[in-house]
Amino acid sequence: MIDVKELYQKLDTYMGKQVTLQGWIRNIRKQKDFGFIDFSDGTYFKHIQLVYDNNLNIFPLINKLHVGCAITVTGRIQKSVGAGQDFELSIEDLKLEGDCPEDYPLQPKRHTREFLREIAYLRPRNNLFQAVFRIRSVAAQAIHTYFQEHNYVYVHTPLITTADCEGSDQMFKITSLNMQQMPMVDGHVDFSKDLFGKQAYITGSGQLHGETFAMAFKKIYTFGPTFRTENSNTKTHANEFWMIEPEIAFCDLNGLMDIEEDMLKYIVNYVLEKCPKEINFCDQYVENGLKEKLMQLTQSKFTRITHRDVIDILKQANVDFEFTPDYTEDIAKEHEKYITEYFNGPVFITDWPKDIKAWYMKVNEDGSTVAAVDLEVPGAGELMGGSQREDDYQTLLNRAKEFHVDIDAIDWFCNLRRYGGCYHSGFGMGFERLVIYLTGVENIRDVIPYPRTPKNCDF
Amino acid sequence: MIDVKELYQKLDTYMGKQVTLQGWIRNIRKQKDFGFIDFSDGTYFKHIQLVYDNNLNIFPLINKLHVGCAITVTGRIQKSVGAGQDFELSIEDLKLEGDCPEDYPLQPKRHTREFLREIAYLRPRNNLFQAVFRIRSVAAQAIHTYFQEHNYVYVHTPLITTADCEGSDQMFKITSLNMQQMPMVDGHVDFSKDLFGKQAYITGSGQLHGETFAMAFKKIYTFGPTFRTENSNTKTHANEFWMIEPEIAFCDLNGLMDIEEDMLKYIVNYVLEKCPKEINFCDQYVENGLKEKLMQLTQSKFTRITHRDVIDILKQANVDFEFTPDYTEDIAKEHEKYITEYFNGPVFITDWPKDIKAWYMKVNEDGSTVAAVDLEVPGAGELMGGSQREDDYQTLLNRAKEFHVDIDAIDWFCNLRRYGGCYHSGFGMGFERLVIYLTGVENIRDVIPYPRTPKNCDF
Repeated sequence: MIDVKELYQKLDTYMGKQVTLQGWIRNIRKQKDFGFIDFSDGTYFKHIQLVYDNNLNIFPLINKLHVGCAITVTGRIQKSVGAGQDFELSIEDLKLEGDCPEDYPLQPKRHTREFLREIAYLRPRNNLFQAVFRIRSVAAQAIHTYFQEHNYVYVHTPLITTADCEGSDQMFKITSLNMQQMPMVDGHVDFSKDLFGKQAYITGSGQLHGETFAMAFKKIYTFGPTFRTENSNTKTHANEFWMIEPEIAFCDLNGLMDIEEDMLKYIVNYVLEKCPKEINFCDQYVENGLKEKLMQLTQSKFTRITHRDVIDILKQANVDFEFTPDYTEDIAKEHEKYITEYFNGPVFITDWPKDIKAWYMKVNEDGSTVAAVDLEVPGAGELMGGSQREDDYQTLLNRAKEFHVDIDAIDWFCNLRRYGGCYHSGFGMGFERLVIYLTGVENIRDVIPYPRTPKNCDF
Repeated sequence: MIDVKELYQKLDTYMGKQVTLQGWIRNIRKQKDFGFIDFSDGTYFKHIQLVYDNNLNIFPLINKLHVGCAITVTGRIQKSVGAGQDFELSIEDLKLEGDCPEDYPLQPKRHTREFLREIAYLRPRNNLFQAVFRIRSVAAQAIHTYFQEHNYVYVHTPLITTADCEGSDQMFKITSLNMQQMPMVDGHVDFSKDLFGKQAYITGSGQLHGETFAMAFKKIYTFGPTFRTENSNTKTHANEFWMIEPEIAFCDLNGLMDIEEDMLKYIVNYVLEKCPKEINFCDQYVENGLKEKLMQLTQSKFTRITHRDVIDILKQANVDFEFTPDYTEDIAKEHEKYITEYFNGPVFITDWPKDIKAWYMKVNEDGSTVAAVDLEVPGAGELMGGSQREDDYQTLLNRAKEFHVDIDAIDWFCNLRRYGGCYHSGFGMGFERLVIYLTGVENIRDVIPYPRTPKNCDF
C-alpha cells in the first residue's frame, strides 16, 4: 500500500512493478471492451490513470463503478501509450471500499464556486480546493518553520478573555448560561453566575498577551484563530479567521520591516518549492501570471515610504480617485492599488496619522504620527499591519484614555512598561489574506475550509 | 547584536571578541568595587554572567540597576575564573533600556506556583516557565513537522458551529447580540437577529469536519483550541485547551495505533534533542527521572490489550481498588495507574464497551464493543483517545439516534458514508496533557500561558 505521491516521487523504482493504491475514482470512461479510471488518493495533486479491459474477471464489477467510489486497486505500473500521462496502472485486482450513487453532487465538470460552497464538505475533493487547501497547509508550515528556525517561541495566547480592550462591540460574547433564561439582578444579567464569574468574550487578537511573552523570550509569535462580529459581506471579510502575530523585543520599526520582508519571501519560496503543481494549476486556472508574481516578489526589494510621501504621490497622480487622498486619513483600496503599481511591487507605508491607528502604537517625535507600518502587496492590498509599541508608561496610559480603553482590565499590559520594558515591535498577518495572495483565489470563502460570515454558519 | 543562544552555539568564534547583547537582569550581586549580573535574553535556557568593576566610568550607573531591568550591554567574552560557568562577559558599555522598581514582584528566589499564577504576565521570565513554554513551543513544532513530513494536510476546522452534536450543555454559546436586552419572540430568544441567524457555539472538537477532509486528502490533522464548559476544578481540566486531531482514510484500528506510537516517539525524540537544557531542569526540579522516562519511551514497544483483558488483570490484582473493575464500565485513574505500572510503559487499551464511548465509533462484530483505543502513559494517564469510525451509513444513523444526536445538523457528516466512504480512523490528543507528560509539571494551569478555569479568567 503506497501513496500516489510516493509513486510519482519514486517512479523509476515502481515502473514495471505491482503496487496497491487506495483512493477515489474522480472520473471513469467506460468502453465496450476496456476503460479508463482517473484516480486520486489526495496525497498528490496529480492523479493517475488506471486502465482495464475485459480480460479481467472483475471487468463487470469495474464497469458498474461510478465517479466518487472509494477503491483499493492493485496493478502493474507501465508506460502509457495514451497522451496526457507518462505512465499508468494496469488493473489486476480491485475492491470496492465505498460506493457512490450516480446523483453524487461533485461530478467531473466545471461547477461554480457558489455551488461548491453549498457542498463545502465535498469540495476539498475538487482540483481547485485540492490546490488551495494543500497550499494553505504548506504555507502554515512555512510560517512555523520560519519562526522556529529563528528561535521564536510559539505562544498560545488565550481565546477567551474578559478584557474588553478592543471594544466589546467587535467581539463575540460567550456564556455557559441558559440564554433563554438569563439570571437577572437589578435589571442586568448576573454574570457572577456564569462560568468565569464575569462577562467573557472570544478575542480578536493575541497581541497584548503576546507582548508579555516577548518581554521574557525576546522573540515570539502566535498563530491561531481570531473572531470579529463585523456584519460585513465582502470578499475579504469573515467572522472567523486565522492570524499570525509576532512580537519582538529590542526591535524598532526598521527591524520589524526587515523581519516582515524576510518572512514573506521565505513563505513564498517554501510554497513555490513544495507546491509547484498546485501553483501551476492556480496560475493556469485562477490568476494568470501568479507564478511570475510570486517569483518576482522573492527577488524584489520592498519599497519603504512614509504615509505623507504616499499622499504626495497620490495627489500628483493623474487619476480621478473616488476618494481624495488626505494627509490625515487612511488610504482607500484604489490608493493601495495605485501605489503598488507605481512601485511595481510590495510597499511598506510607515508613520501614519496617530488618530487613525491603535492606541498602543508608539507616538513619533513629531507628536502627530505613530511608528506604524502597513505592507501593501500587488493584488491583495494590505497583507500585514504592525508597529513599534508605545513603551513609555505614562504616554501609553494617556493614549489608552484618549481611546476610552478600560485601563483597569489591562493594568498587567501597561505594567510591562514599568517592569523592565524596552523598545519593541510586532505585526499581525491575516492568514487568509496570505492564502489569497498565494493562490490568486479572490474570495475568502474559498480559502477557508468552513467559512463563517454573516447569516452563514452552515456545516 | 546577537542572541545569547548564538553566543553559546558559537562560543569558539566569540571567545575574546566584543559582543553586544540585549536582555534582562535576572539577578545582580553588587560588591564595593565590582559586581556580577545574571543576564538572560530569553533566547536560551542558560543565562550568562556579566562582570564589571569600578574601573568603568559607568560603574555608578550599573550599581543603581535592579533585578528586572532591560539593558543593552557591550563587552568582551572571556574565560570565567569563578565557578558555575565557563565564560562570562566583561562589561565595557551598558545602556539602561527600561528600569524596574525594587518592588518588582518576580524576585530571584523560590516563589510558589500559586503566586506565580497571580503574576501570570511575568512568570514566563521565571526559569521553570522558560523551560515549560519553550518545550510547549518545540513540542508544537514537532507535531507539525511529523505530520507535514508524512504528507498530512493541516486543516483549520471551524471553531464557531451551529451543529449541536456534542450536546450544547458542554459548549459555550456565543452571540453578537446585547445580552442585557435579548430580542424575544414568543418567549424565546430570537436568534434570527443574531449574526449567523441562529444559535451558535464554540466547538469542543474538529473531528467531524476533519473527516470530510480525510475523505479528500487521505491524511489530515487539526491543531487548534477547543472549549468545554465543564465546571470542574481539577489539575487536569481547563475550559480552553489545544487539541490535535488526525484523521486517516483507509486506516483501521491497528494502523491507527502504529501512527499514535510513531508520532509520540517522534515528538519525544524531537524535544529531547531540541530542549536538552530544559528537560534537564525539569528532571532536576520538577520530576525526578523525567529524562529517563522519556528516553525509555522512545525505545519501548507499546502494549496493545483489549478492555476485557485489562479488566481481567485488574480483577486478579491483589489491590484494594476504590472502584471495582467492571467489563461494562470505564476504568478509573487508579486502574490506569496500575495497568501502566503492570506493563511498565505505555498501554493501548482497545475494544471498549460501546455504551460508554462515542456514537461515531465503529461497532465491532460482537455487537457489544467498539473499535476504540485509549493510550495510557505512565504518570499522565490517558494521553490520546481514538477509534475506527463507523463507516456504515445506516448503522451510524441508528447509533446517532440512540445517543439523541440531532442528525439534521450533521447530515453532511453522515453523507460521507454514502459518497465514497471507506474504513477510516482518527484520534485526539490533548496538547496540554502532552506538555504535562513532557515536563513533569502536574497542574494544567502551569502549562498554559493564560489558563481559563471556572471563576478564573484573569489577564
